[in-house]
Amino acid sequence: MTASDAQPSPQPTAAILIIGNEILSGRTQDANLAFLGKELSEMGIRLVEARVIPDIEETIVGTVNEMRARCSYVFTTGGIGPTHDDITSGCVAKAFGVALHRHPEAVRLLEDHYRGLDVELNEARLRMAEVPVGATLVNNPISKAPGFRYENVYVFAGIPSVMRAMFEQVRHELQGGDPLLSKTVSCGLGEGTIAMRLETVQEAHPALDIGSYPYFRDGRFGTSLVVRGTDPADIDAAATEIRQAIKDLGATPIEGEV
Amino acid sequence: MTASDAQPSPQPTAAILIIGNEILSGRTQDANLAFLGKELSEMGIRLVEARVIPDIEETIVGTVNEMRARCSYVFTTGGIGPTHDDITSGCVAKAFGVALHRHPEAVRLLEDHYRGLDVELNEARLRMAEVPVGATLVNNPISKAPGFRYENVYVFAGIPSVMRAMFEQVRHELQGGDPLLSKTVSCGLGEGTIAMRLETVQEAHPALDIGSYPYFRDGRFGTSLVVRGTDPADIDAAATEIRQAIKDLGATPIEGEV
Repeated sequence: MTASDAQPSPQPTAAILIIGNEILSGRTQDANLAFLGKELSEMGIRLVEARVIPDIEETIVGTVNEMRARCSYVFTTGGIGPTHDDITSGCVAKAFGVALHRHPEAVRLLEDHYRGLDVELNEARLRMAEVPVGATLVNNPISKAPGFRYENVYVFAGIPSVMRAMFEQVRHELQGGDPLLSKTVSCGLGEGTIAMRLETVQEAHPALDIGSYPYFRDGRFGTSLVVRGTDPADIDAAATEIRQAIKDLGATPIEGEV
Repeated sequence: MTASDAQPSPQPTAAILIIGNEILSGRTQDANLAFLGKELSEMGIRLVEARVIPDIEETIVGTVNEMRARCSYVFTTGGIGPTHDDITSGCVAKAFGVALHRHPEAVRLLEDHYRGLDVELNEARLRMAEVPVGATLVNNPISKAPGFRYENVYVFAGIPSVMRAMFEQVRHELQGGDPLLSKTVSCGLGEGTIAMRLETVQEAHPALDIGSYPYFRDGRFGTSLVVRGTDPADIDAAATEIRQAIKDLGATPIEGEV
């Protein structure tokens, strides 16, 4: 038995919960899913689902419990500010069956921050120091009010710059899988023209995920073919077959996205 | 008993299923949720959840069945093109326990379209004419390959311009509720400064949904307060109380978003 016959260790999985009525009402365009999807994918953590849910306690509690049981990691964004509609922390506490408490270190961070701004640390702002008992704080280098982790659930802010900064704080503690690699070959053919050849390539490489994405740029239609997987030799072989299919169909393979 | 004492008819609900590995991997930024969320909201159809799911048959079938039982309407986007990873139509057929068939009208549309382009209507492109037996086509004025409706499930393309055009084709057949109205008042106060007053307003108007959204624009921080609901008088009253709260806190109410 060679190394390549060995069963790969199961790939870690993740789910993202985007919490907030403003995303569902179309007021705010989410920007966190694309960021987290890309980062997790590159770390070899497979994002199995993202859900956008409203500021309703029962929904948040139920969804957190469903997804934390299904996935290695759950990331939530949104709902940890100082206002009445910021209910994520309380919902996560409820999901784990623990109480919320005012975390002393979080209070200290907010005290320092608002003292520096000469702004009152009132009861509303102190809500941002409340986390489930037993949670670990996630540092927020931008606006100080921390996120937190409880077991496999990471609770981040919704504001994209803050969410990204929080992710960078915890990146080192996430257990990745084999990094997901990808290779893109583009061509001036329509999707429908290359579809059947592409299916043959997919069937010959069942461990890879081959995607086909039409584009229209600078007045030209075409298709980008993206091969994703963890085995570089398998990816190279599939990409070679795709280049050959493009040539056989009378077009010129272009490396990368157009 | 006056009209306003009458029980309102239950508000129609909707779920959106965004189907495609490319959204979860961060390759493609979704633009369909914000559009559909806004349009449905304005029609008085409450979007209860959006899910982003991968191109996996079991997941798509299960999610369609879960959401069509829960909601008045389900809208799917993505996965109805000509390539091997376009499996939405087959999955929706499976969810309803019916077969896929090649719809004669869809074939005719594709024949006309590709004849005009002088492009071969091959087997891959003919897959775009396959819909569940009993489905009604949804016209695609842009690239012709149709979407479809089966009972309360609408199956749309993923490309935003095509998805929007398909939505316009079916808008008239959607049964809306009382239109969701909103009023926005902004101010130069931090969220934490106005949070407690805002909570009082929310408690006095339980039928409304009051959201608080911090912003940073042209070098100035502030907060937009959005009041949403179906009763214009209730909304006006809440907005008046919010303006008063802003003045009491020493700032100036600004009408609308900043």
